[in-house]
Amino acid sequence: MARYEIFVTYKQGIFDPPGATAERALRNLGYAGVEEVKIGKYIRMVADADEATVREMCDKLLANPVIEEYRIVTVEEA
Amino acid sequence: MARYEIFVTYKQGIFDPPGATAERALRNLGYAGVEEVKIGKYIRMVADADEATVREMCDKLLANPVIEEYRIVTVEEA
Amino acid sequence: MARYEIFVTYKQGIFDPPGATAERALRNLGYAGVEEVKIGKYIRMVADADEATVREMCDKLLANPVIEEYRIVTVEEA
Amino acid sequence: MARYEIFVTYKQGIFDPPGATAERALRNLGYAGVEEVKIGKYIRMVADADEATVREMCDKLLANPVIEEYRIVTVEEA
Repeated sequence: MARYEIFVTYKQGIFDPPGATAERALRNLGYAGVEEVKIGKYIRMVADADEATVREMCDKLLANPVIEEYRIVTVEEA
Repeated sequence: MARYEIFVTYKQGIFDPPGATAERALRNLGYAGVEEVKIGKYIRMVADADEATVREMCDKLLANPVIEEYRIVTVEEA
Repeated sequence: MARYEIFVTYKQGIFDPPGATAERALRNLGYAGVEEVKIGKYIRMVADADEATVREMCDKLLANPVIEEYRIVTVEEA
Repeated sequence: MARYEIFVTYKQGIFDPPGATAERALRNLGYAGVEEVKIGKYIRMVADADEATVREMCDKLLANPVIEEYRIVTVEEA
């Protein structure tokens, strides 16, 4: 059993709607100093699977390699 | 107290990352017939507030009028 | 090619974290009349697939039948 | 101008619907070794604001302290 952390973010130049919405809402709350907000996913997984398999899960379901990039950190190995 | 349903969708031409990710994942699951998937928000709200106020909540926080459009349906009036 | 609208909501009694977060943020913005906010998904799909197949897509990927329920509306038939 | 990374996760014991949905979908894709998936938010912010102010933004809008916890990392100071 291993433990992974996965950070999914939009590729440079890809529009990030939840980030844009949060950015706007923060300014509406009075935080004028907010310049940019990007919202990605922070996934923690426990699995009986090696890193190559986790990469496959990202490519197929957890991320969309066309628009997103991700970084996998192995926190604890089997 | 009134009850509202709010449908938030991206404006035409705005890229929809969660939709693109689901589209790709469905094809990876074998559903070759999937042409397009768009994922918006379906919000249900109970509030002591009139529709104009709910519109304001959408503009400020629940949606981002720059990239999203929304439709409010009053299900039950106070 | 058919066109579907799918409404995904949490089953009664299932906790809805994005809804709870929006509810709290709206009150922080000064909307004291907000009683309850539930946030589900509003999916629009174009697919060469019948409704039974769309139901299968929901059960496998678009929703989690253990915690969510969904309603499929066929907007336009092939 | 400072740069922050914010990791938002559900508090222990709080149900995580997107995580549960991804977990189920991964098993449906054939990944039987998947034990647990938790999906949080990975926010990157550029702002003319100190860490205390970013903490306030989290408490008010980016997270819900009742159900979520967050960790702020200052990547680059003004």
